[in-house]
Amino acid sequence: MKEVEIRAKITDNTVASIERIGAVLKYESHEIDDYFKFGKDIDRKLVLRIRTSSKKTLLTFKGSAKGEDIVWSEWETEIERPEELKKLLLANGMVKVTTINKHRKSFSFGKFEINVDDIKNLGNFIEVQVMSENVSEARAEIEQILNRLGIQKEKFITKGYVPLMLESGATFK
Amino acid sequence: MKEVEIRAKITDNTVASIERIGAVLKYESHEIDDYFKFGKDIDRKLVLRIRTSSKKTLLTFKGSAKGEDIVWSEWETEIERPEELKKLLLANGMVKVTTINKHRKSFSFGKFEINVDDIKNLGNFIEVQVMSENVSEARAEIEQILNRLGIQKEKFITKGYVPLMLESGATFK
Repeated sequence: MKEVEIRAKITDNTVASIERIGAVLKYESHEIDDYFKFGKDIDRKLVLRIRTSSKKTLLTFKGSAKGEDIVWSEWETEIERPEELKKLLLANGMVKVTTINKHRKSFSFGKFEINVDDIKNLGNFIEVQVMSENVSEARAEIEQILNRLGIQKEKFITKGYVPLMLESGATFK
Repeated sequence: MKEVEIRAKITDNTVASIERIGAVLKYESHEIDDYFKFGKDIDRKLVLRIRTSSKKTLLTFKGSAKGEDIVWSEWETEIERPEELKKLLLANGMVKVTTINKHRKSFSFGKFEINVDDIKNLGNFIEVQVMSENVSEARAEIEQILNRLGIQKEKFITKGYVPLMLESGATFK
């Protein structure tokens, strides 16, 4: 089973159309992700993410290596005292890459998950995802859902929020 | 209250003399500390330690910054799946600095703690420590205990196990 996902930028609030096709709101969340890297790690080989939400805080190591061996590209642990860790990182050679401040509305639509994300300084996005054995079939089904919501293929984006934020040149603190 | 500590290298096993002066064995432990840094972090500004023992595994960020502001020089969290984290670090630009493989016998002697450490590839050490408001008084008391154990001032060392290991040029894996 693979997670298949398509993301698109939305200019107005599509929440109304999502509810119109029969999707059900499951939860709303607010997460603030701070991304750090070593100042000298120009290629961003290793990135640390500290994710804060009302529920818990997670520390994630994200590696860019994709070797032939089994290499873990992500490792996560729940933590406490994130502010102390951030101070220590910034005082010792790490720099903040960006912050993704995300308000999410998550809907379920049959086997699909539909997320509407409001990313501070970046805009509103929709993500439709599903677990599937058949990637091309799943992509076709997701495209169909997006079409029903009035979102055409030209609007699809493959990049994640971090590269989008870096390209946007948004300032953050 | 500050932790005051003196360490010395011991050539033979001083455990017998420690017990003779009336210290009581509290516990024995075995810890393996793996130290990592960014390959490009030549000054070792930030070091990650993964400490494995029979009880639990700890991940510690150790910063070298000692600014005038309140800067956290150490941040620690309990973790699981350390082997996965190690693989991710080594595959993404971090290198192992050294490994400290330590068998410890810890004794209590009144208000003092006496540790006898057998460090693989480095030798045997004694550490006497106490929490005190008065550093110079505490140091004098510790020196007296060490003298009773036949360890004179010339044998005292101020360096930690990591710099000692690096100086020794010991190979490790």
